[in-house]
Amino acid sequence: MLLRNCRFIITQNQKREILENKDILIENGKVMEIGNVTEMGNNLSKKDEFIDCSDKIIIPGLINCHTHAAMNLLRGVSDDKNLQEWLNEDIWPRETKINGEFCYQGTLLAAGEMLLTGTTCFNDMYFHIGDVARAADKSGMRCFLGQVMFDFFDGEKTKKIIEDSESEIKKIIDLKNERINPTVTPHSVETCSDELLIQSRDLANKYNLLLHMHLSETEKEVTDCLKNRGKRPLILLDDLGLLKNKFIGAHGIHFNQEEINLLNQNKFFIIYNPCSNAKLASGICPAWELKSLCIGTDSVASNNNLNLFEEMKFGVLLQRVKYNDVSAMSTQRIFDSATIEGARALGIENDVGSIEIGKKADLGLIDKDNIFLNPNHNIISNLVYSFNGAVSDVIVEGEFAVRNKEIVNFDLEELIEKVEKFREIL
Amino acid sequence: MLLRNCRFIITQNQKREILENKDILIENGKVMEIGNVTEMGNNLSKKDEFIDCSDKIIIPGLINCHTHAAMNLLRGVSDDKNLQEWLNEDIWPRETKINGEFCYQGTLLAAGEMLLTGTTCFNDMYFHIGDVARAADKSGMRCFLGQVMFDFFDGEKTKKIIEDSESEIKKIIDLKNERINPTVTPHSVETCSDELLIQSRDLANKYNLLLHMHLSETEKEVTDCLKNRGKRPLILLDDLGLLKNKFIGAHGIHFNQEEINLLNQNKFFIIYNPCSNAKLASGICPAWELKSLCIGTDSVASNNNLNLFEEMKFGVLLQRVKYNDVSAMSTQRIFDSATIEGARALGIENDVGSIEIGKKADLGLIDKDNIFLNPNHNIISNLVYSFNGAVSDVIVEGEFAVRNKEIVNFDLEELIEKVEKFREIL
Repeated sequence: MLLRNCRFIITQNQKREILENKDILIENGKVMEIGNVTEMGNNLSKKDEFIDCSDKIIIPGLINCHTHAAMNLLRGVSDDKNLQEWLNEDIWPRETKINGEFCYQGTLLAAGEMLLTGTTCFNDMYFHIGDVARAADKSGMRCFLGQVMFDFFDGEKTKKIIEDSESEIKKIIDLKNERINPTVTPHSVETCSDELLIQSRDLANKYNLLLHMHLSETEKEVTDCLKNRGKRPLILLDDLGLLKNKFIGAHGIHFNQEEINLLNQNKFFIIYNPCSNAKLASGICPAWELKSLCIGTDSVASNNNLNLFEEMKFGVLLQRVKYNDVSAMSTQRIFDSATIEGARALGIENDVGSIEIGKKADLGLIDKDNIFLNPNHNIISNLVYSFNGAVSDVIVEGEFAVRNKEIVNFDLEELIEKVEKFREIL
Repeated sequence: MLLRNCRFIITQNQKREILENKDILIENGKVMEIGNVTEMGNNLSKKDEFIDCSDKIIIPGLINCHTHAAMNLLRGVSDDKNLQEWLNEDIWPRETKINGEFCYQGTLLAAGEMLLTGTTCFNDMYFHIGDVARAADKSGMRCFLGQVMFDFFDGEKTKKIIEDSESEIKKIIDLKNERINPTVTPHSVETCSDELLIQSRDLANKYNLLLHMHLSETEKEVTDCLKNRGKRPLILLDDLGLLKNKFIGAHGIHFNQEEINLLNQNKFFIIYNPCSNAKLASGICPAWELKSLCIGTDSVASNNNLNLFEEMKFGVLLQRVKYNDVSAMSTQRIFDSATIEGARALGIENDVGSIEIGKKADLGLIDKDNIFLNPNHNIISNLVYSFNGAVSDVIVEGEFAVRNKEIVNFDLEELIEKVEKFREIL
């Protein structure tokens, strides 16, 4: 496939180059050449599909580093409670009613929303991840999936939880679909015993997987941890050896200076979730002070959408509020957090996150004449602060997943009818 | 015109009723009936245009209470400065280069963006308002327009400034276009002498017009006013008699308790501008504590768009951050601020702001199958927190201004080409 005469290519390469009027040659799901069509004549065969991109802005597919995709079916069920009440009163009671089908349909709806706003990869934590994987596969997206684990400090449950998680991991590995990757996802220190955390660590080590968990999301999580375990959550995880694994922490709001230093000495990433954190009045992540930062939406139940363009904008605005400083969080850095830094957080920076020769072709195509992107004094600024996320096309590993604003791999209208029925059950 | 079988009508009437599967009959620009088509048979003539709305959500056209529309041409020119530096270094030097044509084209682009996101009325403050009025007229929008005034405490300029403003007001009155209304707009206490403020008051009195100005936007504005005039901005305006007029204050961030009490004893409105205030690190308006609240986007130069749906969402999120309380600002109240309360702020609550018999037909139509609005557990929540603003149709005073996502009254593509040329001048 040849994306011909792309008006702008936001490469997100090391030099953050923005190329103008260049072609992108895609073969076997990868970017083979970036340049002018005459120069790449030798690589063209008759089979190549030519796509005129003279009115398109091409961006790397965005990476949403923290989701609970199936919860798309819970959009708007609870808007005015803090995390504890929201979970205990409105979310967890409903989640007792969910099943594999719920998770399949919910994830498919979430995938539709992510694709239509330019996201090609997500890092998910939920139940029934076999069904989540089925939906992700159907949609054509790239993802990381973990079976959420909590024992609520009931030692009798721990072993079974780990066994179940390992069984799910094996199923994902058996899919042999390199777009779908397993992770290990203990929920948080609020809900997991030391033993569960330790065994999670060992499970991640055994299969060399990413550990993904909620971390220091609320002040209560920190004070409870101090009271019950004598140390703050990050220190507990460090002492239990979890931070020696590949690790990624969601939210990361309540850190003291010692913890920020510890974070910045390590390589693992904190996932900034600005909308969810503000909506639940959990606080604001000290994103500006963190060296390794990616971004996520959390679920629509606390956001209430999966639009990373909106998340980037609010991500900057909230930092300026927190630090009362207009230089808090640059436009380029927040765009990095949703592209190349997101890839780095998940350990896939050699494959995706930027548009470079040899990398996989995970791309978003945007109409340059979109009213929110004009005039074009500063293209990154327009994408971050003004654009509403309505991309025209999305390519994942060289295949269209969105074409002319329509989902390619499933019937969205039919899905919306289907999911409306779950509303009655909840 | 008959909007037939509307799936949902968000009336925003006193009871905040949401009607299902009802028709709306529009005649002479007004809502004549809301009910079932059989019941309104007598009012139907053959001329009536029937619009199937069985897959539409109908909302009152949104009201943007603080804009500088022509500044749409300055989108993205300066993203990382505080209000003073942003004005002095990046905005005012560019504004010396603008002319009537700039203001016409810029306002037309702004009108396109507002219409495509469901806004039917805006309250503007800028230069060359005759040209702003021409653009507003062309677009079909409803608006309030004021020629911005500042004398920078140079007493020799004051008289001429007021004369110019009066001359512009007369021109707008002479248009005899009831959609286009003049206002009196002294810029702020930072830039206007007492004499200019007093004469502004008298000018507004003379023609019975709304006074619209920036108020307590930054801490510096308050400390300068205290230092130079011995009182805080709101108290200064009160003492000069401006608050006895019809008055509306933009931003309204830095108030002490005495000022909040004064505001709540009066009837005039504060315009909450969450995105602009956060982006310029000006602070957060105490919106939750104010009785009379409407909402605005400010200009795209500090936002960087005019999408009131995004503004509503971020408006709630910022209140939760400010007060560290999930009950800060309800979903319904922020929706009110962009509809019926916006109308009240501008003194046009008997004409627009809700969908009721006898009111003008200023309406937004939204596809109920939009992915951001499903599932539909709570329709107001979905509109405020999830929807990206892409309405399908807009009606102003009974006439389509947007039809099937296309601007009706001007060629957007041609306009975007035109405005790109201004970029070179700036």
